[in-house]
Amino acid sequence: MNTAEIIIVGGSAAGLTAAINLKMRWPEKKLLVIRNVRNTVVPCGIPYIFGTMKDVEKNVIPDAMFVDMGISIINQHVENIDKENKTIELDNGEQLSFAKLIIATGSKPLLPNMPGIDLDNVHAIRKDPDYLQQLFSALKKARNIVIVGGGFIGVEVAEQVAKMDDSSRQITLVEALPHCLLQAVEEEFCINAEQQLGDIGITIKSGVKVEGFEGDQAVNAVRLASGESLAADLVLVGLGSVPNIDLAKKMGLVCDSRLGIAVDKGMQTSAVDIFAAGDCASKFSPLTGKVSGVRLGSTACSEGMIAASNLYGLHRTTPGAVGAFATSVGNICIGSVGFTSQAARDEGIEFCVGAFEGPNRHPAHLPGGIVDMKAILLFRKDNGKLIGGHIRGGDATAEIVNILAVAIQGGITAEQLATMQYATHPLLTASPSSYQIMMAAEQVAIQRQC
Amino acid sequence: MNTAEIIIVGGSAAGLTAAINLKMRWPEKKLLVIRNVRNTVVPCGIPYIFGTMKDVEKNVIPDAMFVDMGISIINQHVENIDKENKTIELDNGEQLSFAKLIIATGSKPLLPNMPGIDLDNVHAIRKDPDYLQQLFSALKKARNIVIVGGGFIGVEVAEQVAKMDDSSRQITLVEALPHCLLQAVEEEFCINAEQQLGDIGITIKSGVKVEGFEGDQAVNAVRLASGESLAADLVLVGLGSVPNIDLAKKMGLVCDSRLGIAVDKGMQTSAVDIFAAGDCASKFSPLTGKVSGVRLGSTACSEGMIAASNLYGLHRTTPGAVGAFATSVGNICIGSVGFTSQAARDEGIEFCVGAFEGPNRHPAHLPGGIVDMKAILLFRKDNGKLIGGHIRGGDATAEIVNILAVAIQGGITAEQLATMQYATHPLLTASPSSYQIMMAAEQVAIQRQC
Repeated sequence: MNTAEIIIVGGSAAGLTAAINLKMRWPEKKLLVIRNVRNTVVPCGIPYIFGTMKDVEKNVIPDAMFVDMGISIINQHVENIDKENKTIELDNGEQLSFAKLIIATGSKPLLPNMPGIDLDNVHAIRKDPDYLQQLFSALKKARNIVIVGGGFIGVEVAEQVAKMDDSSRQITLVEALPHCLLQAVEEEFCINAEQQLGDIGITIKSGVKVEGFEGDQAVNAVRLASGESLAADLVLVGLGSVPNIDLAKKMGLVCDSRLGIAVDKGMQTSAVDIFAAGDCASKFSPLTGKVSGVRLGSTACSEGMIAASNLYGLHRTTPGAVGAFATSVGNICIGSVGFTSQAARDEGIEFCVGAFEGPNRHPAHLPGGIVDMKAILLFRKDNGKLIGGHIRGGDATAEIVNILAVAIQGGITAEQLATMQYATHPLLTASPSSYQIMMAAEQVAIQRQC
Repeated sequence: MNTAEIIIVGGSAAGLTAAINLKMRWPEKKLLVIRNVRNTVVPCGIPYIFGTMKDVEKNVIPDAMFVDMGISIINQHVENIDKENKTIELDNGEQLSFAKLIIATGSKPLLPNMPGIDLDNVHAIRKDPDYLQQLFSALKKARNIVIVGGGFIGVEVAEQVAKMDDSSRQITLVEALPHCLLQAVEEEFCINAEQQLGDIGITIKSGVKVEGFEGDQAVNAVRLASGESLAADLVLVGLGSVPNIDLAKKMGLVCDSRLGIAVDKGMQTSAVDIFAAGDCASKFSPLTGKVSGVRLGSTACSEGMIAASNLYGLHRTTPGAVGAFATSVGNICIGSVGFTSQAARDEGIEFCVGAFEGPNRHPAHLPGGIVDMKAILLFRKDNGKLIGGHIRGGDATAEIVNILAVAIQGGITAEQLATMQYATHPLLTASPSSYQIMMAAEQVAIQRQC
């Protein structure tokens, strides 16, 4: 029987980050990654295959860097794992044994149990390069495309499909909530994003649910709860994902079909020497302490590192899944971390809001590239700590969200955020006297009489 | 006698930020700003007048926004202040009285006492639009320009003068230290910046001191300690600044000619109801607790807000001057916050270094705009806290420095920084699995056996 000291099942964000981390820590240990795809794709790069890269292979992570580090990768389906005897059975019958195991099987697209979901040309986003190649070919042929779900994936795919070479496509985005992106982003930024999508010819149907898909063999229409029927020769379902716990269940780990594989804060499962990380593992919110449905690449990477660190002695605990996002839509970028106002209200948390808008460069007379940037920040009323940050701006939007991500995770208050010092520069940032984060935080400091 | 409830002397970063803050807090109070220039220029925008904006007036802050807020501004020189009777005497003989005063007189260029410093065409950077107009005209005529001092100002001015319309100028930058920018930035990034300057035709003479300036009425040469003499028809001295405490001394406030007006952590001076903020006020480093020579716009803005907050009851204390910088040089951007390795060694602090380099977008096959980005992070050995961060990258460099600025000011450790979650996106950031800050921090976490 083949043996590897450490086996990682799953070769995406959590699995490969764990593998790299393990090689940084214990370069001598034999390490094997088993994945059920021929190559790993960059998960958040998938939408950009269609309009920007125009090539699935450009979104594939080359194995060379892993192989160069001494990481072995095999492309095989795991049939079962014997957690007591620490053996793995592959679907080709091969048996492997391990001392330590990390399960990083990720997530599966959430496909609602509705009429017509199995029709041809009803697609989801799967992290498999061969599947994505088929989807890309189908998108090229399609003329009436309906995207179900206006979260980040739905919005990004819609925008990218509109940027495909041949623009004679009718693209409709259907979202059950009143606006796209509303689960993650403040409403006014959602409206900004919808305007950008409208400007490139995408039709948005929001506040309406999909009831089912119609057609004989292939889909030809999407039926809405409003009674309306949308012609469709291709449907893309982007309603989020559910933890992929098929294997974990089969091997007898404690898990929950909605929340994932039960793990402690050190990412250890219910079995000795077996850890789980990424989309397949259960999570909690550091802002509420409650279970969290956030499933993001950056959370997966953090968990992969923590699981790797803890294989030979528990050193670290996860800070929880805070949920930090950013995206680019048309000519704007938006991003967020932590609570939206609505989510904070839903949790019954009392909070103060500060908002500030201004140019992202200074002075405003600088030639070229100046974008109007707005920050909306939410702070707890009781202790003044940052609990939500939302940015609409230019290309640095994601990194500005990350300033706020560190501030939330570091427990920083409005008073602190307002008087911290920031690097500013005419060609790179807003003015130090009207730096959006500072000004929004100061409004709240004043409300709190600091 | 004219009376204003609050008078601010100085209309630059600290003064105007304090004024805006006061109007946010107490909109009804009569507020007067007195400045000795006809308009306020954006201090950090000054270098960009020459090559990018090509117009002094584009770097002027319009008074309209202040006037619209109800802030009065007068352009007059303050002759003296009677701190007991709370009156101000202007040089036109007018008398004013105040209840609360903020002194924000800024800094003056540091002009070394060396032979020929008073020759015609030996210039410094003064925050006065009329002076800058003269300097701009002189730069246009000059053919042999020597810039003395290779800090941020010297480097930025050199690059911008090289971008002026007529490029038939010989530009030489003289720096006493072994490299430009070395006081703020890790050595390898200083070398990167020097390469960029070299690529646009700027000659750098580093590791050599200037001994004096030669000429009859106007300068015609710069004499170096090496014995070399550089032909020069214009010299720009960019050796930093000293606090402008002329008025504070005259009115009898406690001050130090090198450190500035003595203030407590609430920005209060030795006199009741009189505060000071910005370049003229003394500062301390939050990393050492010792006095600090950092004089930056963002520090000034923070102090202006703190002084404003404290006028009617002490609410807030300054976190100290941490020193966060960023700039753009040729095709790269560099920025830093906190200690360089050398500065930490000079302070006798034991530290660990983590460094990571990779593309600032993902996947690396994305078309256009990908820049190789490197993070060098310094953490204390004893408690793992971040004490220095250095970035070389693209346009988001300053905001990435600000992630680190918040982390330093928030007392974040390597272990925390490595497993925090960051918003990542293909078109906006590095990959979540090789996010430079995370990977550099993780290297140190591993060194510290976390």
